[in-house]
Amino acid sequence: MIPSESSGFFFFTPTMTSDLRFKYNADGLVPAIVQDATTKRVLMMAWMNESSIRSTIDTGLMHYWSRSRQKYWLKGETSGHTQKVVRWYVDCDADTLLFEVEQTGGACHTGHQSCFFQELDRTGSPIAVSEEKVFDPEATYHSK
Amino acid sequence: MIPSESSGFFFFTPTMTSDLRFKYNADGLVPAIVQDATTKRVLMMAWMNESSIRSTIDTGLMHYWSRSRQKYWLKGETSGHTQKVVRWYVDCDADTLLFEVEQTGGACHTGHQSCFFQELDRTGSPIAVSEEKVFDPEATYHSK
Repeated sequence: MIPSESSGFFFFTPTMTSDLRFKYNADGLVPAIVQDATTKRVLMMAWMNESSIRSTIDTGLMHYWSRSRQKYWLKGETSGHTQKVVRWYVDCDADTLLFEVEQTGGACHTGHQSCFFQELDRTGSPIAVSEEKVFDPEATYHSK
Repeated sequence: MIPSESSGFFFFTPTMTSDLRFKYNADGLVPAIVQDATTKRVLMMAWMNESSIRSTIDTGLMHYWSRSRQKYWLKGETSGHTQKVVRWYVDCDADTLLFEVEQTGGACHTGHQSCFFQELDRTGSPIAVSEEKVFDPEATYHSK
């Protein structure tokens, strides 16, 4: 009857809590594979902890845990290149997540659409990258 | 001039060695995302070390490192559900690999085509799985 109580109940039901009990690693993290919802191109892989999963659910925008910076990270916070969740999946042993997203701009800090822009040949040597960048990383990350 | 020397040279050129110097984690592993080369569906995520990458290159079939069993693992060794490499990519910081494969049978030990058959709803609760299994895991893994 009171909206705030109702809202609070929604967020703290035992069902919801247990649903996020994925198989986290020793650091409390699960890998998240991120794929373009339309083209199905794999855009990136990053790590999430339970709180970043919660933020992703609450906002509909991908949030990660940065292992190098030891902090939460709203993808697109600096660049504006957010990722809107369309669908998500957990794998058979509950230790990896897959998100299908609508990617604004490009996913990669290098300016490429996908972090997997570097194809390798049969021996493991890099193949010349022919695809164009979708944004200028200098202008995006270092402009005043 | 001598075939065996020529072959040895090919496998131990500095170029090839350095090309497999990906950014392995503390356990000497990199995550490998595996995607169907035709449909682009993400099939699974598993871990590789340098030797399993080498076996994958040498045979054209996906080999992993099993963290739980601490051993090499030719995908499909028991089930026959091998994964033939079509293309592969390394990501921008060289710590994740992406393989596009031709999957025989299904990728998941549960009998599903993909390990990511469990979709979650907006709150993280599982959605009823409607897709059929592509093989019978009992018959595949436990038949005499």
